Amino acid sequence: MEEIEVHELKRVEMKEPILIEGLPGVGNVGKLVAEHMIHELHAERIIEIYSWHFPPQVLVKNDGTVRLCKNEIYAWKSERHNLLILTGDQQSVTNEGHYLIVERLLDIAQQYGVSRIYTLGGYGIGQLVEHQVVLGAANEPELVEEMKRYGVEFREEEPGGSIVGASGLLLGLGKLRGFPAICLLGLTSGYLVDPKSAQAVLKILCQALDLEIDMQALEDRAEEMERVVERLKEMEQAQMPRRREEELGYIR
Amino acid sequence: MEEIEVHELKRVEMKEPILIEGLPGVGNVGKLVAEHMIHELHAERIIEIYSWHFPPQVLVKNDGTVRLCKNEIYAWKSERHNLLILTGDQQSVTNEGHYLIVERLLDIAQQYGVSRIYTLGGYGIGQLVEHQVVLGAANEPELVEEMKRYGVEFREEEPGGSIVGASGLLLGLGKLRGFPAICLLGLTSGYLVDPKSAQAVLKILCQALDLEIDMQALEDRAEEMERVVERLKEMEQAQMPRRREEELGYIR
Amino acid sequence: MEEIEVHELKRVEMKEPILIEGLPGVGNVGKLVAEHMIHELHAERIIEIYSWHFPPQVLVKNDGTVRLCKNEIYAWKSERHNLLILTGDQQSVTNEGHYLIVERLLDIAQQYGVSRIYTLGGYGIGQLVEHQVVLGAANEPELVEEMKRYGVEFREEEPGGSIVGASGLLLGLGKLRGFPAICLLGLTSGYLVDPKSAQAVLKILCQALDLEIDMQALEDRAEEMERVVERLKEMEQAQMPRRREEELGYIR
Amino acid sequence: MEEIEVHELKRVEMKEPILIEGLPGVGNVGKLVAEHMIHELHAERIIEIYSWHFPPQVLVKNDGTVRLCKNEIYAWKSERHNLLILTGDQQSVTNEGHYLIVERLLDIAQQYGVSRIYTLGGYGIGQLVEHQVVLGAANEPELVEEMKRYGVEFREEEPGGSIVGASGLLLGLGKLRGFPAICLLGLTSGYLVDPKSAQAVLKILCQALDLEIDMQALEDRAEEMERVVERLKEMEQAQMPRRREEELGYIR
Repeated sequence: MEEIEVHELKRVEMKEPILIEGLPGVGNVGKLVAEHMIHELHAERIIEIYSWHFPPQVLVKNDGTVRLCKNEIYAWKSERHNLLILTGDQQSVTNEGHYLIVERLLDIAQQYGVSRIYTLGGYGIGQLVEHQVVLGAANEPELVEEMKRYGVEFREEEPGGSIVGASGLLLGLGKLRGFPAICLLGLTSGYLVDPKSAQAVLKILCQALDLEIDMQALEDRAEEMERVVERLKEMEQAQMPRRREEELGYIR
Repeated sequence: MEEIEVHELKRVEMKEPILIEGLPGVGNVGKLVAEHMIHELHAERIIEIYSWHFPPQVLVKNDGTVRLCKNEIYAWKSERHNLLILTGDQQSVTNEGHYLIVERLLDIAQQYGVSRIYTLGGYGIGQLVEHQVVLGAANEPELVEEMKRYGVEFREEEPGGSIVGASGLLLGLGKLRGFPAICLLGLTSGYLVDPKSAQAVLKILCQALDLEIDMQALEDRAEEMERVVERLKEMEQAQMPRRREEELGYIR
Repeated sequence: MEEIEVHELKRVEMKEPILIEGLPGVGNVGKLVAEHMIHELHAERIIEIYSWHFPPQVLVKNDGTVRLCKNEIYAWKSERHNLLILTGDQQSVTNEGHYLIVERLLDIAQQYGVSRIYTLGGYGIGQLVEHQVVLGAANEPELVEEMKRYGVEFREEEPGGSIVGASGLLLGLGKLRGFPAICLLGLTSGYLVDPKSAQAVLKILCQALDLEIDMQALEDRAEEMERVVERLKEMEQAQMPRRREEELGYIR
Repeated sequence: MEEIEVHELKRVEMKEPILIEGLPGVGNVGKLVAEHMIHELHAERIIEIYSWHFPPQVLVKNDGTVRLCKNEIYAWKSERHNLLILTGDQQSVTNEGHYLIVERLLDIAQQYGVSRIYTLGGYGIGQLVEHQVVLGAANEPELVEEMKRYGVEFREEEPGGSIVGASGLLLGLGKLRGFPAICLLGLTSGYLVDPKSAQAVLKILCQALDLEIDMQALEDRAEEMERVVERLKEMEQAQMPRRREEELGYIR
């Protein structure tokens, strides 16, 4: 096994595709969006990436079979759109792995002639979010202006100085190779998987891509999550003063 | 010293042997089974594996001499069975070491023409187990069906999404090389070395292999452990409210 | 991407320049001094250093664009002075990265014919500092004597046995290559960014370099910080007995 | 800089020398013995070892100059003895570094034709030691018998299953290369630097080597330490119920 193994399942011809990254992270916002898009668009899995920088474990699927931790790239083409969608089980657990895997992703992006990159994630604020907001960052000033038109907020003091992992490095290392790249971060508590924040991010992404995607499935998950949050609030009022956060945990 | 060193003590001719892995892990279930089999079958040690991914220490034996941390493979042949049994002192302590050592184990498996892999371990539930259960996972759907016939349970939500270490990676990386592989996990508290859980796993393994192994030694250890557990329960009732779990510790 | 990438933005001819290091660290003292000098002298950025030993993240600038974590070297020349000033966002987060990056910095120092190195930092004492003191260390006894003349203190028991990171390794690894090198550490609480300590360090450095630099900006930041400290003291007296230190945190 | 750098300061001809290792560890017992021997015998420093597996820091000496963390080998010859004594500031801070540095030490041992290795350390028992005991381990059964004659104890259950770091690996990796090696561990609390335990270890080592070394300096430090311990006991009785261990800390 090599440090990073790229298994190309199928070669697809694409014209200046747009790469969308949604790997696991805060509130799983990016991953929710990417998986929703893959599902709704019936995108096709074309690449699998394995690495010893992923956790040394397999995931057990519902049918009792297992699979290695991996990242995956899906392709979807319409007359007007050429999309590559990146998602996966995990990000690197080593420092250098983050850099090396993103570099390999950019190699793939170059092969496919990717014209722009969107990275998606959540921005945890440590409390329940009242009003959905999508914060942005980009690797070119023009992209900042462009994104402002879609309602993305760019706050001087936020997103808090740094964007960690693939969502950040695709912008930073991407710039060194000349890829225009934008990061969209949905405000989220950070305690819960957040399909509502994912909806907010997806809406802006769809506007930016001039793409229509049915949101019902995310809507349903958001409602379900809302019920969980309501119950948690009630529990809170019924006073469980200590350890509240611990008990919320990270409900998937 | 190389990153991973394989010392072949003896070359044995084998016909499509079955590889059984029982390295240290939750409740030491896998290791207990492997060591019991090696002992009862008088299996022969044929390979030692050293690596700088193991902890930087030596183990002191009862006679005052020491040995490096290592993994070991034992061979046992009868007319109907060809077994390679893998056990050891430790698993890798680095992330990449897990992957690299399992890859090396698979190299050895290929050399010996291994036809199937069983990995053994424990599945910790955080409380004493009332009824012994063996959970399973496999890297092919047919193996799932086969194992169900021996009473192995495949639960949609368990074994909790992931199997960490060699027991998992032998399935995942094994699949990439075409090895059929099955993981058997005995339910266990996770606090204690659990020979009772090991018995449950061994029973199913013996059925699957159509092999008879005397279980008295495991039975004895299980009874001894039961007495420890009884004492712990009494202590619990005699109220040592805090730090109970800490005091149980990980009794070997 | 290589392990360490040195991007030379501009080649400047220099005569036996002096290298001044001010990377992030305790009280951010070194970085404050380096950035103040770069700003006041209008020094020119000539080198950027990227590495997978830096944290895997990008920093978001005020205009919404991002940049990779990096170290930077600035050049400034006058008739009497040739300075290279090293600063950056981060130091290595891996053990070996510290050594490898400093070695690369020394390669650059050799290319430029650096004649002496000053490394700058803070020495945290865990309480507010009443009287500004600058502690020193050097990699040659003559330098110790020289620095004493500028009021640098060399205490037998301090700076506590060790100097961690680039400020220390530039002296230690520098010695192996024959670079005379001095470390100046401003006493600081360790809880707060400390421009007052930075002033003290800068004063001594200016004396040693026979250089004049306007200190108003540092003075202003120091006064601002003083007000923060006053408020903290009041809060302390108004009794918030527990968690005080946590709440001070590390105010930038 | 290479991963491990061996600087040979002087080449000394030796006849089947004995290598004695005393690096930092529990109670600093091994290091105390090695340094005492070097001092009393006026042994000569012949080798320095640098590595990026040591902590990334320099140590400040009393004269204000610094030096890199390193390991050192000293040589001492008399008519009847040829000794190489290994000590240093630190051991590796990475897992693989432990293995690689010990391998390099064994390379040096081979060059010098080392005939036997003694590794020295402390065995922490978590409470003050009433009666000095030296526990042993070896990599050959004959050595166990030999050491018993000098009063070294070999307990079935101790030293607790494992010996961590160079003191252990020199035995384990040494065995693979055919070096007879013995580990001597002085019982110690683990909280304090323990010159009394070092004395006990040194006495046995001197017997085994048939060597006489003045112990006054160690005796003096032991008495000084005793006074510290007495004071600690008084403080304990004067009731400082909590955080006692923290305050003891690790007094050097």
